[in-house]
Amino acid sequence: MIIILKRNASPSKVEELKKNLVNRGFKLHLSEGTEASLIGLIGDTSSMHEDWLRALDVVEDVRRIREPYKKANRSMHPEDTVIDVCGRKIGGGNFQVIAGPCSIETEEQITEVAEDVKASGAHLLRGGAFKPRTSPYAFQGLHEQGLDLLLKAKKATGLPVVTEIMSTEHLPLFEDVDVIQVGARNMQNFELLKELGRLDKPILLKRGLANTLDELLMSAEYIMAGGNEKVILCERGIRTFETSTRNTLDISAVPMLKQKTHLPVIIDPSHAAGIRFMVEPLSMAAIAAGADGLMIEVHNNPEKALCDGAQSLTPQMFDTLMKKINKTTEFFRELNA
Amino acid sequence: MIIILKRNASPSKVEELKKNLVNRGFKLHLSEGTEASLIGLIGDTSSMHEDWLRALDVVEDVRRIREPYKKANRSMHPEDTVIDVCGRKIGGGNFQVIAGPCSIETEEQITEVAEDVKASGAHLLRGGAFKPRTSPYAFQGLHEQGLDLLLKAKKATGLPVVTEIMSTEHLPLFEDVDVIQVGARNMQNFELLKELGRLDKPILLKRGLANTLDELLMSAEYIMAGGNEKVILCERGIRTFETSTRNTLDISAVPMLKQKTHLPVIIDPSHAAGIRFMVEPLSMAAIAAGADGLMIEVHNNPEKALCDGAQSLTPQMFDTLMKKINKTTEFFRELNA
Amino acid sequence: MIIILKRNASPSKVEELKKNLVNRGFKLHLSEGTEASLIGLIGDTSSMHEDWLRALDVVEDVRRIREPYKKANRSMHPEDTVIDVCGRKIGGGNFQVIAGPCSIETEEQITEVAEDVKASGAHLLRGGAFKPRTSPYAFQGLHEQGLDLLLKAKKATGLPVVTEIMSTEHLPLFEDVDVIQVGARNMQNFELLKELGRLDKPILLKRGLANTLDELLMSAEYIMAGGNEKVILCERGIRTFETSTRNTLDISAVPMLKQKTHLPVIIDPSHAAGIRFMVEPLSMAAIAAGADGLMIEVHNNPEKALCDGAQSLTPQMFDTLMKKINKTTEFFRELNA
Amino acid sequence: MIIILKRNASPSKVEELKKNLVNRGFKLHLSEGTEASLIGLIGDTSSMHEDWLRALDVVEDVRRIREPYKKANRSMHPEDTVIDVCGRKIGGGNFQVIAGPCSIETEEQITEVAEDVKASGAHLLRGGAFKPRTSPYAFQGLHEQGLDLLLKAKKATGLPVVTEIMSTEHLPLFEDVDVIQVGARNMQNFELLKELGRLDKPILLKRGLANTLDELLMSAEYIMAGGNEKVILCERGIRTFETSTRNTLDISAVPMLKQKTHLPVIIDPSHAAGIRFMVEPLSMAAIAAGADGLMIEVHNNPEKALCDGAQSLTPQMFDTLMKKINKTTEFFRELNA
Repeated sequence: MIIILKRNASPSKVEELKKNLVNRGFKLHLSEGTEASLIGLIGDTSSMHEDWLRALDVVEDVRRIREPYKKANRSMHPEDTVIDVCGRKIGGGNFQVIAGPCSIETEEQITEVAEDVKASGAHLLRGGAFKPRTSPYAFQGLHEQGLDLLLKAKKATGLPVVTEIMSTEHLPLFEDVDVIQVGARNMQNFELLKELGRLDKPILLKRGLANTLDELLMSAEYIMAGGNEKVILCERGIRTFETSTRNTLDISAVPMLKQKTHLPVIIDPSHAAGIRFMVEPLSMAAIAAGADGLMIEVHNNPEKALCDGAQSLTPQMFDTLMKKINKTTEFFRELNA
Repeated sequence: MIIILKRNASPSKVEELKKNLVNRGFKLHLSEGTEASLIGLIGDTSSMHEDWLRALDVVEDVRRIREPYKKANRSMHPEDTVIDVCGRKIGGGNFQVIAGPCSIETEEQITEVAEDVKASGAHLLRGGAFKPRTSPYAFQGLHEQGLDLLLKAKKATGLPVVTEIMSTEHLPLFEDVDVIQVGARNMQNFELLKELGRLDKPILLKRGLANTLDELLMSAEYIMAGGNEKVILCERGIRTFETSTRNTLDISAVPMLKQKTHLPVIIDPSHAAGIRFMVEPLSMAAIAAGADGLMIEVHNNPEKALCDGAQSLTPQMFDTLMKKINKTTEFFRELNA
Repeated sequence: MIIILKRNASPSKVEELKKNLVNRGFKLHLSEGTEASLIGLIGDTSSMHEDWLRALDVVEDVRRIREPYKKANRSMHPEDTVIDVCGRKIGGGNFQVIAGPCSIETEEQITEVAEDVKASGAHLLRGGAFKPRTSPYAFQGLHEQGLDLLLKAKKATGLPVVTEIMSTEHLPLFEDVDVIQVGARNMQNFELLKELGRLDKPILLKRGLANTLDELLMSAEYIMAGGNEKVILCERGIRTFETSTRNTLDISAVPMLKQKTHLPVIIDPSHAAGIRFMVEPLSMAAIAAGADGLMIEVHNNPEKALCDGAQSLTPQMFDTLMKKINKTTEFFRELNA
Repeated sequence: MIIILKRNASPSKVEELKKNLVNRGFKLHLSEGTEASLIGLIGDTSSMHEDWLRALDVVEDVRRIREPYKKANRSMHPEDTVIDVCGRKIGGGNFQVIAGPCSIETEEQITEVAEDVKASGAHLLRGGAFKPRTSPYAFQGLHEQGLDLLLKAKKATGLPVVTEIMSTEHLPLFEDVDVIQVGARNMQNFELLKELGRLDKPILLKRGLANTLDELLMSAEYIMAGGNEKVILCERGIRTFETSTRNTLDISAVPMLKQKTHLPVIIDPSHAAGIRFMVEPLSMAAIAAGADGLMIEVHNNPEKALCDGAQSLTPQMFDTLMKKINKTTEFFRELNA
């Protein structure tokens, strides 16, 4: 961490700052330039806040040299993390497809979709029981009853299940869920992240609509700092000025996250585009860019889906897509071997 | 709501859609153009989701004519809402200043700041006990103990208090808090909003970093739909590509929200800029644009503040600012009389 | 185009508007709803400006049903446009790689890179003689002399050349250039676009950093309206809040543009990421998403490049990448056959 | 400038880099930390490009300590620059209002508006002869004829005139224009900026829709580096995800630019919001935030304006607004005295 001092900083106050920093255990490296006078901090700065420094009268600005996340940082853990979900491995060269409806609507619906996606080769089943909806007048999910139906579909098909949590109060209901999803709108619901850090269960953490990759990793760090290191990161589109697509899929996030962290990274092409015909090209792009998995919305009757029908594939479309996904992951595995 | 049909839509499927819409209680208005064929829906479309329509094979796109929020909509409630906080009125021409530290640190700190801001003329006291921090290694607030200290400061000064909630589980602790704040990161924590909708207590709802004004109003609608119509909206800066300022204060939000809704709108200039010297000009701009209040961070020792020191004013700076605020609100009251 | 009338619109002024619209040759379709009264315009609205309508006292808002571009619109021209550059075809299933240095520096440099990229299988040579640089103190390119060197490299290798124009005044210098590039910062330099519309030469039009896809197509329309329909669109990253990457590659732009227009779409992964190690994964993603080509920076000595060295590949890296590009385009050609 | 070396950087290559830097005239300041090894450059780095350094194998990242603009930098020129336009001073406490139509349409129109805005107290007349329009099918301005009409209106009223240039080729036509405007879309049309740097005439430089404040200042630096230091900066709204307003007025730009530079800063509230009713509150906010002037669209018949009618005020509205502007600038002059 580099501290840039103001040009007219009072020497006595600068001395005071230096003493304070030494007392906090840092070694200091001083530099007097024509442009500026600098203080370099040598030591672990991850718990040092730029903000405290910026508040000081003598400080003009602060530049961080290292990222403030530790457990999520690849430099601390060079090997890829592989997460095992009931025998399905994600990360470290293992690719998985999570498929299912946006929301769980009826027993028939979720079981039928589960059987269909399993037959096509999906490895995990998704389905929402608690749905974050912009409008209070929209369908909010079946809640507890939805979770029951999801677990029935799990029993019927053997597919591990992924579903979203929206409040710490619902945690007891998620005991038999295999992967708990944190949605984009809750990526910085820190109280929720802390609770999930106490579990021994994989967490699928979606990037917020306007959150940087470093913030995503800091949210992963909240979970990991609590002791739960099974975090799967998910890019699902960010918010930009473009209005033709619902969100903008940040495909660069895949190689950049792979460099910054050892955690697996998956892509949700369904939410990224919001339009059915774009799910396939974005899925292909995700594989090509090096993602460890995909999360795809499939509904047995998209025209009657209670949410997000416009982006859901039919089981037939998904079956065709899965064949392409399998060939494409195989192709890139060989290409990069 | 206008439904745009695909050019090659199957006539029988279009007929099916029309019947379905009539069964839902809408009158239809059909239009055949050279550009497109359209169906206009006549009736209350606030619970009708574009998404369901967009999923249909025959539908190209959907255009909403009216906003989907009702209780927050000025067209349903032309008069300004005035919210009374222990006798301090906000909205409808009543301007209030909320001041205090980012986080509550010690009894001396919060009481001293409270007495100082009261002496300068602030009308409400702010102070955080639960702090949303990007890093798990940062100070997270004093929690229950912090709320106790805040209530002591309230008792000592008579100032009503505003403080942030981060989880529904903490609600019982907020019984004696006068205004509950929902932070930007929780603007779409819908489970929390629903719980706050059951209270009879003013809610200060901050706009999320990447949320549109319509989404802010839909979040207000969540609270209002539950029966609690005492919502104060707060603009605190949005996230853009600009890096010189921490956030970009969306000053246009003030006149635009005033047109869309009857709820009071306040500005938080401290978080918007993140830098002390910008608090004054942004405060002046907020008053000039028609805001109903300001929320300003004041710390008796910003250089030792445990968070957000760089943007906190000293009590002396705040005192000078309050004099300008009072003159400026007075000036604009006369100018616009 | 749908005109939404204000609730309290004066009937006589509405009558006046209707007459005006009929005189402009539109058929009108009226709709009285509980939400709003609407006027639908039937006829060609591409030269009708929403802005004129929005200025009217009786108009609340305007919703466009069809995009305002015509020549670039796929609905007017369902077949893919194939652009022939000295025998190299782009679009309609023909994939091309454009490679070369950011800027032309010396005869040895450009000729050496040209020979290297040709040997690796690139189809066109790029190299900048006029360089748009943020700083006036940065290297601005060799200008006329640079174009001479580029044409020498063309002669030596037989590769057609692509280079950027920055002002209409330089047009005479571009006579022997095969493809003229319009950079992101000039995407809405309309005077330049008009001049390029008078040529019979392919134009490579880069998307601006904050321009929507519809604006990109309107800029293409400027060129096409002048008579030059040989426009190649290029996505090169957009500006967002993310700071880890220089820009955010909008990969969704590929399938979305393919639906909106018949023009070829290529990707510039070098500028999109700004970092060397991301060029390969983004190239792979571009092919997977359906792009018609790639534009890649290659420098024989990136550590001494006068601009954009951080994102330039060495000829050896490019050679390895070209092998992967060839295999990958072949793979997807078969997959999608 | 601080160079962060890679952890595994080869010592011999680091030595090579150090020699190179010393040869370029820098003194070096070395720092070995647990986090990273750093090289600090002491000397004038404004012509040193981060990009060249980032391309090096041993370099992980580069942090700039000082801004790369010099002539526009307040630290080099602490006093406010005051620009004199035919006796009207802008900057350094001098506030000016520029008013007039978006485009010049007829002699009657421009002369009538000019007389009206003069009577209301405007100090300069604006009017566009070259209009940058998204669509090639939209009215593009009267060009040479428009400039003639503008100069007639200048003669009739004595008001100095401001009008936009779109191409260096048109420069000879602008000889009698008092202030030449560079529009947002041309902020990084560097060839145009260089030409304007050779003039002895004030330039009104508008911020691009997605340009940072530092980029705006680098564009000003292009003009100033050529010798023309009469640059007026103009904030006119930036592009964000918000869709309720046409652009987002970045009001923080005013105090932030005032700190970074000595150049005058004005606001264009008409383009920022795109809607008539927001012009007044945004004008008031601009004055309150410390702007040196306003640029406001006025049309004698907004309902028939050939462009931007929705945001134009009538002369009557402008007259009312000017009275408020005068009172408000007077109020803040006293408040801040």
